Amino acid sequence: MKSIDEYRIKIETEIQKLEFPGGKLENLYAPIRYSLSAGGKRIRPVLTLMASDAFGQAEERALKAALGLEIFHNFTLLHDDVMDKSEIRRGRPTVHKKYDENRAILSGDTMLTIASQFVSDVDNDILREVMDSFNDMAIKVYEGQQLDMDFETEEKISTEDYIEMIRCKTGALLGACGKIGALIGGVSHEDAEKMYEFGVQTGIAFQIQDDWLDTFGDAATFGKAIGSDINNGKKTYLYVSALESNTNTAEALREAFKIPAGDVRVKTITRLYEKLGIKESAVKAVNHYSSLALRALNSTSLSDDKKEIFRKFAEKLIGRKK
Amino acid sequence: MKSIDEYRIKIETEIQKLEFPGGKLENLYAPIRYSLSAGGKRIRPVLTLMASDAFGQAEERALKAALGLEIFHNFTLLHDDVMDKSEIRRGRPTVHKKYDENRAILSGDTMLTIASQFVSDVDNDILREVMDSFNDMAIKVYEGQQLDMDFETEEKISTEDYIEMIRCKTGALLGACGKIGALIGGVSHEDAEKMYEFGVQTGIAFQIQDDWLDTFGDAATFGKAIGSDINNGKKTYLYVSALESNTNTAEALREAFKIPAGDVRVKTITRLYEKLGIKESAVKAVNHYSSLALRALNSTSLSDDKKEIFRKFAEKLIGRKK
Repeated sequence: MKSIDEYRIKIETEIQKLEFPGGKLENLYAPIRYSLSAGGKRIRPVLTLMASDAFGQAEERALKAALGLEIFHNFTLLHDDVMDKSEIRRGRPTVHKKYDENRAILSGDTMLTIASQFVSDVDNDILREVMDSFNDMAIKVYEGQQLDMDFETEEKISTEDYIEMIRCKTGALLGACGKIGALIGGVSHEDAEKMYEFGVQTGIAFQIQDDWLDTFGDAATFGKAIGSDINNGKKTYLYVSALESNTNTAEALREAFKIPAGDVRVKTITRLYEKLGIKESAVKAVNHYSSLALRALNSTSLSDDKKEIFRKFAEKLIGRKK
Repeated sequence: MKSIDEYRIKIETEIQKLEFPGGKLENLYAPIRYSLSAGGKRIRPVLTLMASDAFGQAEERALKAALGLEIFHNFTLLHDDVMDKSEIRRGRPTVHKKYDENRAILSGDTMLTIASQFVSDVDNDILREVMDSFNDMAIKVYEGQQLDMDFETEEKISTEDYIEMIRCKTGALLGACGKIGALIGGVSHEDAEKMYEFGVQTGIAFQIQDDWLDTFGDAATFGKAIGSDINNGKKTYLYVSALESNTNTAEALREAFKIPAGDVRVKTITRLYEKLGIKESAVKAVNHYSSLALRALNSTSLSDDKKEIFRKFAEKLIGRKK
């Protein structure tokens, strides 16, 4: 197997080589090129290549599917940004700001179908299982996005509801990357399901960690402004577990979230989270889901040295500094 | 084979039986239920069932794929209505008016994936060809929608450009319905391609006829207000062929389209079209594409009585009074 960085470079190189029609159709494909050129960690296709490689097929065999999963991921970002009215993504204007909403919607639709075409570029004997896995995952991602949008206007969300939402919105795609990569690698249905589980739990741990970093992280290494979730009133893992921690909290939180966006609001709510022990309990939750991911990984038939590379992948992702 | 009405009733019954999750996910699935319950002629799944039946497999075998193609069609209507800011569809508020834009975008995405799941419910030996055909068609439909949106701001559009646009936006889906139905029916690749061609050309004839009816039709039987394309400044087949008919027309048309929406505008432009002979030349174009459709149909290996049913289907669609 190669190193995580080598897989990432492979994906980045292949994305740069992708060609889309221009000419009369430039208006449809320019936003797709723009969206895919934004860089990022490419963790989803990297996991796909790693899984294929680890289970016995050179990662070349999984390349098209891996690219398809990355295109799918970028499609969801594109439509989510329209829905959330986000203006900046990875330091650049979002697609609907750079072009317009209509082109963002239609280019997104096109990316979903292109993703489906790429992912279906696998051997006939695994085509159905791969496509079923891809489509089931996509449905979960939409359901997760709907739940996330619903949370914005809901008063009371349990941590259980929240975990269910991120299991769908973030976990399912990483799960599908692990599973589809493993299927291309040629494993049994059982091992593929274990790799699905590894991806899902890693995704959940990753999202909670991301919530934690947004409040308690180090601005210099996080890569995003600290406190943006608090300023945007986002219902994060920290928020929902604070709500659950004791009965007086709900009122205090509601009051604190009335403070206008800015330093005072961020500091007040950060201190409230600290007082309630959320800073520590969130770390515990990250560790809990990380250990579920590792348990799934350990139950596969992979050799110890291969397991070690996936362990590093999860560690790098969850313990990421950027 | 059954009658066209019998196939339609079969589809309508099956659509009413479809079940989608509710509960916490009601916000995602309610717009899908609403969208699919709007009725309509169901011509796309009817063609799919007919083709499967005609080529040797009871239409039951094609039912899931047929429903998938109808769900795909409704997904495109849903997203197109968001992009076109349409408020009414089949006499009811459009999805984004009844719910909101975000739910229209996300429910549409979900419908595209559900369509893909339904269409993939075919035997393994034709799965790849069916899915390739479905995905290729979807890309064409998006390209057609982009060209259609681009036309809104373009001064000069040739009839050739216009035909290319409706070949993608309207023709490709009917083509895929004919082809996928035929594949499920068990025909050769060649016959399937001929059924694709039959569907595409029928779709082009249908769209030109629809443009014609919007201006020259009978309000009582057309089912839509006459002149809505003229009032909305839509670049129809009539408009683009008027532009091409002689050099002085462009200026006269531009002036006429400055008249505020209403009876005067509709009458002025309708008379201009009549003077230029567009009323007749558009009918010729409908007949031209209809005959291409029938030529493709006649070249298939179908028996004469089966060909007759498809001929009736095209006639009913293109000569439709409602």
